Amino acid sequence: MKVCLIGSGNLATQLGIALFKKGHEIVQVWSRTAGNAMDLAVQLNCQYTNEISLINTDSDIYIISVADKAIEQVLSGHFCGNKLVVHTSGSTPMELLSPYCENFGVFYPFQTFSKSKKVDFGTIPICLEANTPQNLEILKDLAQSISKNIQLINSDQRQQIHLAAVFACNFVNHFYSIGEGLLREKGIGFDILKPLIVETAAKIVDHLPKSVQTGPAIRNDKEIIDKHLDFLGNHPDLQILYQQISDRIIQTIN
Amino acid sequence: MKVCLIGSGNLATQLGIALFKKGHEIVQVWSRTAGNAMDLAVQLNCQYTNEISLINTDSDIYIISVADKAIEQVLSGHFCGNKLVVHTSGSTPMELLSPYCENFGVFYPFQTFSKSKKVDFGTIPICLEANTPQNLEILKDLAQSISKNIQLINSDQRQQIHLAAVFACNFVNHFYSIGEGLLREKGIGFDILKPLIVETAAKIVDHLPKSVQTGPAIRNDKEIIDKHLDFLGNHPDLQILYQQISDRIIQTIN
Repeated sequence: MKVCLIGSGNLATQLGIALFKKGHEIVQVWSRTAGNAMDLAVQLNCQYTNEISLINTDSDIYIISVADKAIEQVLSGHFCGNKLVVHTSGSTPMELLSPYCENFGVFYPFQTFSKSKKVDFGTIPICLEANTPQNLEILKDLAQSISKNIQLINSDQRQQIHLAAVFACNFVNHFYSIGEGLLREKGIGFDILKPLIVETAAKIVDHLPKSVQTGPAIRNDKEIIDKHLDFLGNHPDLQILYQQISDRIIQTIN
Repeated sequence: MKVCLIGSGNLATQLGIALFKKGHEIVQVWSRTAGNAMDLAVQLNCQYTNEISLINTDSDIYIISVADKAIEQVLSGHFCGNKLVVHTSGSTPMELLSPYCENFGVFYPFQTFSKSKKVDFGTIPICLEANTPQNLEILKDLAQSISKNIQLINSDQRQQIHLAAVFACNFVNHFYSIGEGLLREKGIGFDILKPLIVETAAKIVDHLPKSVQTGPAIRNDKEIIDKHLDFLGNHPDLQILYQQISDRIIQTIN
């Protein structure tokens, strides 16, 4: 397909590369920042622009992958005519596109992306939604060209998926960071924690997380919990978090 | 070495199996519960007992792998004479063993263990501490027979490592559980979250967590944060957690 990529952030970059590698023609990259648009366009062997008015009008699909609040601003460019337009946002209902487009949908690859870290798209769930069955078929074809994991997900579900990801990915990463900081205080490198972090994630591939919960809270081991709260004396904010989450885990016993 | 295994929990089970496979002779398993001792003894081709007074006295090393509060109770059995005794606890200072033993130390494999999930010990950090250089050498030899990742860690550091693990492993797993519950509310299976969870953990193998933080909080995206807080209206406890952790992440910006 002839793809116009609107955005040049982490997701746009990785998605553009995946589509390009599978033989899709990337016609153009738009980004508010010309330098970012150019950097990605070089990788995708295509044109670029930072003017909304110069977005080309002859692509088969327009993939809008910008910050949620910038989606409508971009759409005001009226480039799409009757062409298919999708956004890639977890938290934006599909209907936001309705006033601007005849044919529209959502193409949400559910993964955490960094510009610099290569990602294997093959197993990433791609959550699709479209305003007509015909458009859904087009999105399925496009998605299946880069992933085996296609999911039909409505806007209500997609927003919940995004919320779940904030806990299970974004907050989890912050907790890795808390661990790293605690180790650093005692002169211990972060490396020692890595096998544990990787194993903790690997466990849930075959088990429900609740069934493999370990640690002092799930044993209701008040002695260790109190000891840890004591160690956290210099971190009253972490003390509160430790207590709250331990209480939550204790409540799941039985 | 001739090993006596005192305990039959998750760690004792996996450690016993790893030592047995590497050719060490497991002489005996003790557990408070005869059935548990027997189950493990069958796997390790050895004797078992649930009587502290019947713990054998001719092993080279006694590995005490029981709940922290049961360690001293077990030691009251006076089985060790001048033999080497270690515990495997993250949160118990080595000196706890001092009144009971001449030769003692700590052998702390730093990983999350379940009885049913096989673990590759080869890369697990084993944190060692001993009361004499000679005993440390013995522990190093034993540890190196099952892992390449040997760490010399004192009691103060080990307790901090355990605390860091509660955040980066136990609490993380609980957050997977929160994600699973949120998905379930909307009829979505947990599978969709798994690639994201595995990738989030994989990222920190080569990056400091802080440098790969993603999500609405690190972008200070108040619109999405407010939307998520709104979605969590039926979960006031999760609302509070979401706000607290988002605030912490926002504070790390710049």
